[in-house]
Formats: sequence, C-alpha cells, structure tokens
Amino acid sequence: MARIVQKFGGTSVGDIARIQNVAKRVKAEVDRGNQVAVVVSAMSGVTNQLVDYCTKIAADHDQREYDAVVATGEQVTSGLLAIALQQLGLQARSWAGWQIPITTDGAHGKARIVSIDGTEIIRSMESGHVAVIAGFQGIGPDNRVSTLGRGGSDTTAVAIAAAVKADRCDIYTDVDGVYTTDPRIVSAARKLDKITYEEMLEMASLGAKVLQTRSVEMAMKHRVRVQVLSSFNDQPGTLVCDEEEIVEQELVSGIAYSRDEAKVTLIGVQDQPGIAAGIFGPLATANINVDMIVQNASSDGTTDLTFTTSRSELDRALKVVKENMKVPHRSISTDKNVVKVSVIGVGMRSHAGVAQTMFKALADKGINIHIISTSEIKVSVLISEEYTELAIRALHTAYGLDAAA
Amino acid sequence: MARIVQKFGGTSVGDIARIQNVAKRVKAEVDRGNQVAVVVSAMSGVTNQLVDYCTKIAADHDQREYDAVVATGEQVTSGLLAIALQQLGLQARSWAGWQIPITTDGAHGKARIVSIDGTEIIRSMESGHVAVIAGFQGIGPDNRVSTLGRGGSDTTAVAIAAAVKADRCDIYTDVDGVYTTDPRIVSAARKLDKITYEEMLEMASLGAKVLQTRSVEMAMKHRVRVQVLSSFNDQPGTLVCDEEEIVEQELVSGIAYSRDEAKVTLIGVQDQPGIAAGIFGPLATANINVDMIVQNASSDGTTDLTFTTSRSELDRALKVVKENMKVPHRSISTDKNVVKVSVIGVGMRSHAGVAQTMFKALADKGINIHIISTSEIKVSVLISEEYTELAIRALHTAYGLDAAA
Repeated sequence: MARIVQKFGGTSVGDIARIQNVAKRVKAEVDRGNQVAVVVSAMSGVTNQLVDYCTKIAADHDQREYDAVVATGEQVTSGLLAIALQQLGLQARSWAGWQIPITTDGAHGKARIVSIDGTEIIRSMESGHVAVIAGFQGIGPDNRVSTLGRGGSDTTAVAIAAAVKADRCDIYTDVDGVYTTDPRIVSAARKLDKITYEEMLEMASLGAKVLQTRSVEMAMKHRVRVQVLSSFNDQPGTLVCDEEEIVEQELVSGIAYSRDEAKVTLIGVQDQPGIAAGIFGPLATANINVDMIVQNASSDGTTDLTFTTSRSELDRALKVVKENMKVPHRSISTDKNVVKVSVIGVGMRSHAGVAQTMFKALADKGINIHIISTSEIKVSVLISEEYTELAIRALHTAYGLDAAA
Repeated sequence: MARIVQKFGGTSVGDIARIQNVAKRVKAEVDRGNQVAVVVSAMSGVTNQLVDYCTKIAADHDQREYDAVVATGEQVTSGLLAIALQQLGLQARSWAGWQIPITTDGAHGKARIVSIDGTEIIRSMESGHVAVIAGFQGIGPDNRVSTLGRGGSDTTAVAIAAAVKADRCDIYTDVDGVYTTDPRIVSAARKLDKITYEEMLEMASLGAKVLQTRSVEMAMKHRVRVQVLSSFNDQPGTLVCDEEEIVEQELVSGIAYSRDEAKVTLIGVQDQPGIAAGIFGPLATANINVDMIVQNASSDGTTDLTFTTSRSELDRALKVVKENMKVPHRSISTDKNVVKVSVIGVGMRSHAGVAQTMFKALADKGINIHIISTSEIKVSVLISEEYTELAIRALHTAYGLDAAA
C-alpha cells in the first residue's frame, strides 16, 4: 500500500463531466490499494470571475476580503468531487483549508504555508476515506481565510504530501509532462522521464509554466517525489525527484525561455563608486524585480550599465531610475523586444564547455547576445526577440536533445 | 445610537452595481450614527447553479458536501459587500458562519440554529466596523459547514439581531412590505404599516412568500422587531412586532392563499375506532405533511374522511394511504384543483362573526366550500381553484380592506 496525493487543476475539473472523470482516476488509484488525498483547483474560469468582481468594486481591494471571496472556488470543487466519488461507491469527504487546518502567514492574497496538521487527514484516510482538499488556501493568524496566490494549488498538494508523508504527489495538468523545451516551438522536443528538483526549479522560474516555482521549492525542501502528468490520457508523466534517483543524467535537460523581459541601459554613466547601489537600492525598495545585471567599464571614465526586469514593470522601473539617477550620464535607453533563453542541466556542474556550446550555436546562426548570466546549473542569455525560435531550435539540436525522427 | 441588522436577498445583491447600491444603503444607516450588521444572500442565480451541480452528479448527494458547496454563494457576497463598503470609506469585514460562530444542529441541508456567540460581532461593531455576515449557514457539531435550507438568510438575520440585541432587523426584499393580500390579484390591496408576529406567522405559513416561516417564529420568540421593506426604493415598509405596539388593531389584517394544495378523500369507510390513527400515523412516519382534516359520520355506518397535503406530496401520500388502508371502504378520490384561502387577524380573538362574514361573502359569489379549518386568529377554507381570484377579491372587500380609490 502506498499513500498518494493527486492534484487536479482548473481545466481538469472544468465541468461536471470532467469532475466525474477525475473521480474515476481517483477510484483507479484507490482500487490499486492505495490511500489517496486529492487537492483540487477551482473550475476553470471561476477564479477569474471572482477576481474580476473584486477588482470591479475596488482596484485596490482589501486582500483579506479578496481571499474570502476567491477561496470559495476551490471549496465548491472539493464538495462536488466528494459527491462524485461517493457516487462511485467510495467513502470521501471534502476539507476546506481552515478545517485541516493549513495555517499560513498573514500575507493575504499571497500567503505562505507555515504548517499543516496532517493528523485529521491521515486519520480520515486510514479509515478508508478519500480526503478531498480545497487547494490554494489556508487560514491566517487572524483566523481568516488566506490564499496562496495564483497557481497555489500545486503548493497545497506538495505541502499536503509532505504533511501526510505521501509516497508520491501526482500533479495532473493539461500537458503530459515536462519537455526538453516548448513543443510548440521545437517539434522534436522530448518528454523527460525524470528531472531533478534543481532543474525543475530553474525551468519553473525561467518561464516553463508546468509547476508553480514555490511548489518545486517545497518539494525539494521536503524531498516530495512529484509526478507531472496529463489528466486527459493514461501516459506516465515526468517525475521530479532527487538527483540520486536519476541513473543516467544528461548534460543538459532542457531549454527554457521567457518573453516577459525588458532591458534598461544607462549609457555613459560617470564611473564612480556606489553607482549600482544608488540605482538598485531604490528599485528594491519599490519592490521591482531586477534579473540580469551587466556593467562595462570603458576607457573614457564612463561606464554602461544594463539590467533587465519584467515588461509589465518597465515603466515603473524607468520612473524609479530617473528619480534616483544623481550621477552624470549621457542617456537612458530601453528595449522591450528581448527574450531570455536558458540552458539548464545539473550535468554542467561537472562538465566544462557547456556555455561554450551555447555561444557557438548562437554565433553560428548569427544571433547577437546582449547579456549573459550564469548559475551553477544554467546559462541564460538575453537576445533580440525575433531570434527566439531560431535560437531555441539551434540549442535543442546542439545539446543533442532532439528526439529520434 | 441604535443597533440595526439589515438583510439583503439575492435580487438585491444580484450584480456588482446592486452590491454597490446596497453599500450606499448601509452607509446611510451608519451615517445616522447607528451600529450596523448586514446579512447577505448569494447573488441571484448562484445558489440554483450550485444546487444544480450537486444534483447533476448525484440526485441523492451527501448533504454535508451539498452544504460545503452551496454555502459558498453567501461567502462570496459577504466579501464583495465588505469591499464595496470600504470603497465608500467605511470600516467593514466579512464573517462566514463558522467564524462567528453560528452553531447549528447536525441536520445538514436544513439545519436549525442552536446558538450564536455574538461576542466577536459586537466587539467588531463597537470598534466601528460594519459586520457583513454570510447568511443561510452555520457550523454543525461535526465542525463542518451547515446550511439552514432555502430562504435561511432571513432566519440568520433575525438570529443575529437577537444575538447582538439589535433595536431592529430590516429585511430588504423585492417587495416593499406586507400587503393585505397579493396585489397581483387585488389592485386595491394596501401595504400594512404594522402586523403582529402571530399574523405574520400565519401569512408566511399560508403562502405569503415575504418572510421565511422559521424567521418569523424566531422573531416572535426573541421579540425581535422586523421591518420588511424594498431595496429598490426609499419607502418605509411593514413592521412585524408585538401586538402592544399596534395601537389600532384591524379586525382582519390580510387574506392569504396557497395553490400548493391537494385533497384526498376516503369514501364510505366502515366507521370504527382507530381509523384516523391508522391513516395519519403512517403518513407522519413517512414525513408527509397533512394540513386540513375533516371526518363526517353518516347514517349507514360508514364515514367520509378528507385531508389535504401539498401537491408535490400527493402521489407519495396516496401510496402510503393505500398500503395502510386495512378498513373496508368504497373508494379513494383525489383532487389537485383546489386552493386554500385564509382570513387572518388577531382581532378575531375578541370579535364574533368573522367566520360568518367569510362564509356569506363566498356564498354570495356562489363559491362552494370543501373544507373549513380555523385557529384562534385565522379561518381557512379549501375551494376549487377556478374561484381563487374571485374569492380573494370578495373577501378583501367584505372585510373592508380595499384602499380608498
């Protein structure tokens, strides 16, 4: 007997027929002799509708009331799935976040899980009941409903898996696993059987939308084995796991990209100590996320400073920079037509030349690199947006990721 | 300073604009220097949608899961109204039933309120916050969400008013008060300024749909002054109150009617002790509500026994009767084309001849009476449905209820 947590997203529970279909999948797992807890999202469209209501009344609404409103979507799905499971002859009951309880911090609207008391859920599962848990929510220190931010149901599922010491957490979604890159761009993209937590984390934060970043962090921290798989077919998915579980580790596991990038360049800045601090301090204070940073000293006593941020924050970032730019400089330029392409793989920790392969592949296609940024297991470059597909296809081939035709 | 509870039904909070309109009404009450608690229903259509989901999955769904699902409608409205109130510059917070808590018995789907702890709500109101309470729900002894049955938000409002010792409970609805009879039938029907609990209770249980019967019972028990008024205009409504508060008591306050009636007649039953017990015992066991009962002995040693039930329960009632009819009888007949018309007034306790006026008015129009049933403050007759409007108009005139032209 194993203990399994299953998570179904909004499209998987989008209508009554799909909820009944999910019930059959849960039953199949129970029929294998397993104890099952299920975490569900709101039916697709519901959360958007509720958010829209709040925003229509007040753009800057009270986040505590927002939480009380939007958390209901998952509560509805959990009750309906419990009914559907009972209809198949299973014992089942629904759980709202506050009933378990899933306690969070007080950051309403984007709360973080502080702890989960698994006692009641485990007792219910051991008595033969499927536990159907409303995702995306908990209860804050003020005894009010809190939500985890969009996509938070993934995090709920992983946290529940950790709390009940589950053998595996299956995240059902509308894709059938994690691919070497976006199959819409590279038709030869392959589904990965396994991927490490570290790689998945980079994938998630670099724009692959399969799993919420925070859920991967939590899985890594608690060593929860997470499987990403499709709720619309019966194929095995991709297992996110410890490096030790992966026998044959590839050099590079995948190519990720993000179009939500914008570049700001400060040109001809008088070179003196404290320039960077004078700019990035105020940006941090304004809660603007800065990603890549490059500074080049030049011979005439001036320097060029470039950084990237998300496109939606560009205007705000520019305003902050202009207000705080106390050092003489020639000009400030911005560019929204840029994209970040990243090569990811834990294999590069022990292999030299991975970055070089990237630079050569891009140079061969005549693609100019604006900025380079590296970490232990990834190399990211910023390039002009028009080269996105060309670059991704070239890199996918260069690292030998293409599936056999 | 007064303490006021306001309740707004589904049509009053049917969309965002209406919720904002409700917020203005609440603000007007706060601006008068009053402490305000607001009880809200689900946005119109939402509860039906949620009930429909449950029923689609399983006709005989688990009532506990049904409660978890349908209670969310009111939670959404309460959060949205709190946001709308804050947008008008008021302090406000939403409360789900379990947060107050409103504790109920374990009869999920049609739970009864056991107790309300008013402490937190009163503290919140005294600190200057409007308390926005999700109607129709509480928390059962199993620590799970319970609902009070359709229309239960009226009961929530009255119960909250009792718990916080409110000076008045204003029930906003889509009619502007309680009328002497249905204005769609009698154009000269008048809105009543005041009506006693007892009369309102008869009105409610006799088919006037202004207030849920249980909420009137609770108001009477706790002596909560209830005002029924329109959320779409600024006219004063009808105050439901103690008899002492009504200076000039009319003989008859109103004419009510109910079309949901069906008649069952057992013809030529051999007259012996225990016949009634042998029939009505099993009907009670089967949870079938029997309203009027008449038995006439005849000279040949047989008797006719007639009773009424609601139309939807007729088939079930007939089945129970046939299964338990152990006494010799000639036949059983049923009639769905009947209607109950009632004359209501606490004044008739001290005045003779009220029933006689009714019988004469009906006879003058050639309307045959099938069954008569009386209580201290009402006289009800069962007549053929085709005479409904004729009878109501005749009685309205006979008791001098017509408004001056």
